[in-house]
Formats: sequence, structure tokens, C-alpha cells
Amino acid sequence: MSHTAEIIAVGTELLLGNIVNTNARDISQALSAVGINVFWHTVVGDNPARLRQALDIARRRSDIIITTGGLGPTYDDLTKQTICAAFDRPLVLHSDILDTIRTYFEKNVHTAMPDNNIQQAELPEGCTVFDNPVGTAPGCAFESGGVHVLMLPGPPFEMLTMLRRCAIPYLRRLSSEVIVSHDIMTFGLGESPMEELLREKMSHMENPSLATYAKPSEVRLRATAKAESQEAAEAMLAPVVREVTDFLGNYVYGVDVENLESVCSRLLRQRHWTMATAESCTGGRVAERITALPGASQVYRGGVVSYWTQVKADVLGAPQALLETHGAVSAETARAMAEGARRVTGADIAVSVTGVAGPDPDERGVAVGIVYIGLAAPEGTFCRRCDFGRRRRDRIQDLAANHAFDAVRRYLTGLPVETWTK
Amino acid sequence: MSHTAEIIAVGTELLLGNIVNTNARDISQALSAVGINVFWHTVVGDNPARLRQALDIARRRSDIIITTGGLGPTYDDLTKQTICAAFDRPLVLHSDILDTIRTYFEKNVHTAMPDNNIQQAELPEGCTVFDNPVGTAPGCAFESGGVHVLMLPGPPFEMLTMLRRCAIPYLRRLSSEVIVSHDIMTFGLGESPMEELLREKMSHMENPSLATYAKPSEVRLRATAKAESQEAAEAMLAPVVREVTDFLGNYVYGVDVENLESVCSRLLRQRHWTMATAESCTGGRVAERITALPGASQVYRGGVVSYWTQVKADVLGAPQALLETHGAVSAETARAMAEGARRVTGADIAVSVTGVAGPDPDERGVAVGIVYIGLAAPEGTFCRRCDFGRRRRDRIQDLAANHAFDAVRRYLTGLPVETWTK
Repeated sequence: MSHTAEIIAVGTELLLGNIVNTNARDISQALSAVGINVFWHTVVGDNPARLRQALDIARRRSDIIITTGGLGPTYDDLTKQTICAAFDRPLVLHSDILDTIRTYFEKNVHTAMPDNNIQQAELPEGCTVFDNPVGTAPGCAFESGGVHVLMLPGPPFEMLTMLRRCAIPYLRRLSSEVIVSHDIMTFGLGESPMEELLREKMSHMENPSLATYAKPSEVRLRATAKAESQEAAEAMLAPVVREVTDFLGNYVYGVDVENLESVCSRLLRQRHWTMATAESCTGGRVAERITALPGASQVYRGGVVSYWTQVKADVLGAPQALLETHGAVSAETARAMAEGARRVTGADIAVSVTGVAGPDPDERGVAVGIVYIGLAAPEGTFCRRCDFGRRRRDRIQDLAANHAFDAVRRYLTGLPVETWTK
Repeated sequence: MSHTAEIIAVGTELLLGNIVNTNARDISQALSAVGINVFWHTVVGDNPARLRQALDIARRRSDIIITTGGLGPTYDDLTKQTICAAFDRPLVLHSDILDTIRTYFEKNVHTAMPDNNIQQAELPEGCTVFDNPVGTAPGCAFESGGVHVLMLPGPPFEMLTMLRRCAIPYLRRLSSEVIVSHDIMTFGLGESPMEELLREKMSHMENPSLATYAKPSEVRLRATAKAESQEAAEAMLAPVVREVTDFLGNYVYGVDVENLESVCSRLLRQRHWTMATAESCTGGRVAERITALPGASQVYRGGVVSYWTQVKADVLGAPQALLETHGAVSAETARAMAEGARRVTGADIAVSVTGVAGPDPDERGVAVGIVYIGLAAPEGTFCRRCDFGRRRRDRIQDLAANHAFDAVRRYLTGLPVETWTK
């Protein structure tokens, strides 16, 4: 039997527009991955009467209700009380949870637990307790008249941790079928051409199914299968993933990988190589993305943000004459920047970015959106020219950083760096 | 008379968790700024029956209904049809709008308008038309039985443009009072101590009101006043803003400013000075944030991401002996990095960051969360030691970048750099 879920976020700060409801997105993703339909998101303020109204509507149309927020220790955290009233369940004090919260305070906050945190240890009678290893508010779940109610905390990091560790396992048990997905990550092909290419395949696919999700210059292809067992689902997916990856060839940079930089990091680690960066218009974005990965020091030595032309000469050693002849935004400068970064850091390879992010053209009149990517390697230096057109500054910077990582990825897998289309 | 608004987002991609509902946040912010209460957010898929259900619930509890999405040209864009059925209004073709859409296609898409875009020119009889200068789908608004229904497109950029240009002016006319807010931006004081400090002031304040919004290591204080005119509201706010900024003193880094880096950029521009960066554990975040600002080249020369210790020596010229004696994460190294960045770039000042972002302590056993900020200036070099404790890697990197900008901000305003508490 298939379930219908509704997500109710509780918090006035959402209605004031102070924060965005990422919890609803994250829960929706997780639920669709286990084959549970989400038909409604609702956001209501810290107001018992309106929360009660939302619950009464939800229980009539959904058999899974997941709330986020309102589990805190302050007077306006009323989710548990309101839900228990709506489903007439008494709130009972769990002394073991109280001890856990006390310990959490001593260990992490280095203070004694304030009295108003005691109410966080009160949970609905007979509920399944969801521990909160990263905060004080525990969550819980109970079933009442065929409706499953799950309460999760509001802070996204606490919610996500509890969702993965407790809520999803609880929900899996409600569903007989298993849903398995694999993400085929592609770079360099837009969503529409991708769908054109795959229309034939995608149209008549029900189970397994194939869906596309687009990010700037990237498309994630998700293949999903429903079956009665993990093994059966995997068996259904294997040929689809193989067929699609073969068909898309070099556009595919990985299956079930996080992003381009993590693929670059893995490829570098395999060779015991290190890389360096030289950035102009991306101003440190490439370095920032690679150093966001834990253990980045194994593969990344460092880089230079040569925002001013003089820094390209003084720090990266780009020849003054070359800079004057060809300008800061040119293939020659991109090459010199990459070679300079490789030389001064001693890395095995270096990638460089120089271009015009806008809003204005550069002093030589190079148009907004023109970006050169350089890649210096033991056997020589490569360059890719990109034209992103007139876009927002941050979009151009993100696209340029993506292309820098794609150049590294392609070099390390033996593909031509200059071009990124078949 | 005060209004109650409900925002209904239409789109299955929201329920699948493919995108996050930023439209609801942006509309909520804009509405609270004009004094309209938002009591509900609802998200429903591209499903006429469920959208109809959402509309029937909304019209019973709200007198302003704002929908986003479902105005496109494809078969599953059914918002207009469903709303017109619910409020029994006929859809009528607006030939002038049809011309506008045709022209948009010829000018921006360089193709003839496909026939299925014709339905985008059909709008409810007697509605106020909201032009869409950045897309093809126009929006609209009409009043029916005391309920105002506004339809906005789903793509955030189109929605925001139409919200500011059409929807907010339309809603302002419904409300007699004006709401004005000013944001007092503070750094270095947590939300709870801030509320402790201001409890007296905040508790008995109704209009103007004072609210706190926390980001990592930053608190935004929003002072808001309702009045019959802009002038009257400003007159009510002026003394509050003055009193609070005086009271909080050096914690305040600006009023109605975007962020720390934009304040640093303004202060540098005023002196005709430039800055440089030397980053270790932040891996380019400081450079990335300053270069995210348009016109950054006026104040930012460049920097070095000295992730490996050897790069601190080879590129920044930090003495090998110093690095060996004190280690990469030390006050001495932070100072040497800042001095090196200032020297190699020729900038007036340079800020440096070296620390342990985790997940593991550094090879000398320096704990996760220990970060040193260096600032090299004409009259000498300063250093600030921070202990952020055991947090997530990205949190520590963001906090460290914030402190780097705070050090620059404090130096340029003549405050001590070493400490950030009064």
C-alpha cells in the first residue's frame, strides 16, 4: 500500500521570510527516495490554534505527517503539546532522555541544564524516540488511527541528522517495496539537449525511471527502480545506468558522486598527485571548493588569486611583455598563470581562470562572459576558451569554476582539455 | 483593516525536493515589509484537484492569496484555469499581451512563438495584468468577494521582478499604513547575550519594534515602525536606531549594510587603499567573498591560498625557521603570512587566516577550531586568536572568514584588531 505524506513546518521565522524552508526540500527528497509520495507542504507560525488547524486538515488527507520545528525549550515551542492534544495522547517525562540532555549540556555547553529544558524530555506516551546526537531536542514518532506522526527539530543540521538516522528507517518499515536510485552526473550538456538525446529512452520508462535535474552547466540524471528487494532493484538499474553512461560518454563525470571537485580530488589521490590554482575572475572560488573537501591537503597545495594584472607578473611570474601584448584576459595569460602556479607551488598540475565576470567589460573591451581556463601539466599546457554570454556576475564565476574542475577532470582521465563537447 | 495572506506555491518539483521554495521566503519578506501578515505557506503539486482544495481552504482563512508557478505554456501549467474555475471567472484572451509575448520570442529567443504560448495571453476577466519583462508568462490580480488573488510566475527571477514592480504596489494600495525597517548589523556578540543586553529595551517595545536575527557570529537587529507616512515612520525609528547603536558601540559594523566585506570595501575605497589576502584553512573564502562584490578590483589586489606549509615559505616568504619553530597554525605564522601577502602584492593592508578547520587536529596537535587572524598594515602587524571549538568544517571556515573581515573593519575604523569584545 502506498503512503501519502504531508510536511508541516512550524515557525514564525519562516512566515516572516527570515529563513527558507530547506527542511521541506530535504525531507521530500528523502521520502521520494524511499517511495513515499509527498502531496503537501504546509508552513504555520508558532501558534497553537493554527497548528491545530493544519494538523486537522493534514490527518484527513495524508497518512504520514512530518513536523519540523517547535521542539525547543522556549515558551513558543508548542509542537508536541499541540500534536498530543490533537491526537489525545498524554505527554510523559522520559527520565533517560532527561539524563541525556543533562549530559549534553555538561559536555557541549559546559553549563548545567536550565530548568526549561526539562520539557524537552517530555514525549507522547508510547512513542518511538528519535535521539538527537547534535542538539538537545529529541524527536519522536507514533501511530494513531492509521496516521503516522513524526516530529523532527527545526535546525536543519539537527533535522537532517535525525532524518537519516531515525525517521527514514522508521518510514522504510512502513513500505513493503524498496526504492533504489543512482545519479549519473554529467557536465557540458544543457537540460533540453539532454532530454532531446534521451527522449526515446525516457518516454517509455516507468520502472526503472529516468529523470533529469539541472544545475548551471551540469545535469544530474537520476535512475530509480522500485522492487521488493535491494538486489532486485539494483539488477533492474544496472543495465539502464550502463546504457545511459555509454550513450552520453564523456559528458558523464561520475555515478553517485558528489560534484566535479570531489571527482578531481579522487583522481588526484589515485595518482598521488597534487594540484594548484591561479584565479583571476573566480577570485578564489576554485580554491574554496577544493578546500571545502575534508582531507583536501592530500591533493591541494595552494594557489594564487591574481586579481590585479601586476600580481600575475609579480607572484605568478607571468612575463610583463606577454601581459601587455595579449592582455589579462587571454589564452596566453591563462597559460602563463597556470604555469606560474605550478612552478611556485611545486604541484603536479595547476589550473587557472582568467575572464570577465562583469558587470563591465575589461579595460581592453573583452566582453562580459569571456573566460579562459588554463591547465599546466608535466607534458605541457592546455587552454579552454568559454563564452558564457551576458549573465549575472556570480553565475559567470560559478560556471568558470565548474569549467576549471572539468578541465582537471578531463586531463586526469586522458580526455582533451580544450573542448568539452564530444 | 489588517490583511491576512497565504502563499500557495504550485509545482511538483517542490514536492519532490528538487528545488527549495525561495519564492515563499521572498514574498513573505516583501509582505511583512508592507505590514501584511502571512499566516500560511502551502505547496501543492501540478494537480488541479489538490490545487482547488488548497484554494478552497485558503479563501476561508485568508483575504490575500498569492500563487507562484503553473503559468507556463505546457499542459501541466494549470494555475490560471483552476483559479478561474474556483472563483468562477472566465479566462479571456488579451490580444495586446499576445503581441508582447510574440515580440519577446522574436527579440530574446530568436524564434517564432510556439502556438502553446497563446494560452499565456489568456487571463481572468477584469483582472489587473502584471507584465513580465523578463519572461513570457504574465501575472495578474483580481478581487472576488473580498479576497484578493494574485498569480505570479514560478521562476524566482521572474517572480521577484513582478513582485517588486507590480504585486507590492498593488498590495500597498490595500493597506493604509506604511512600514519602515532599519537593520543594525553587529558582529562578535551572540544572539542570547544580545537579547540579554537589550531585554529591557526590547520587551516594552511595540511600535517601533526591535527583533534579532542570528547568523554565525553575526546578529542583525531590525528596528521596524508602522505609521501613516514614510516620514512619520522614519521619525519614530531615528531615536531607536541611535540609542541601540550607541549602546552596542563597537559591535555595530553598519546600519542597512549588506555584510562585513561590503563595509570593508567601502572603508578601503574611502582611503583609496587596496587589500590582499593570505589564506590557509579558509582556502580562498575571504578572497571569494571580497571578489563577489562588483568593482572589487578597486580595493582588492589579490592573495595567496597557502594551504601547504611550503607555499607559506615559497610564495609568501614566511621564514622556514619560524614555520618550524611555531608551526603552521600559530600567531607568528599568521603575522608572517599577512606581511608576505602585503609585500608580494604591494597592497596597503593584508589579512591572513591560518587555523584548523578539521575534521582532524593538525599534525602538531593544535585542536580543531583554533584559528589565527593576522593583519599587516603600514604601522605594523596585528594578530587575533579565535577558538571556535569543535564544529563542522564549513562552519569554522565561515566563522574564520567573518573574523578576517571584522579585523579589517576594526583596523580601518581605528579599533583594536586583537580583540572583538568590548
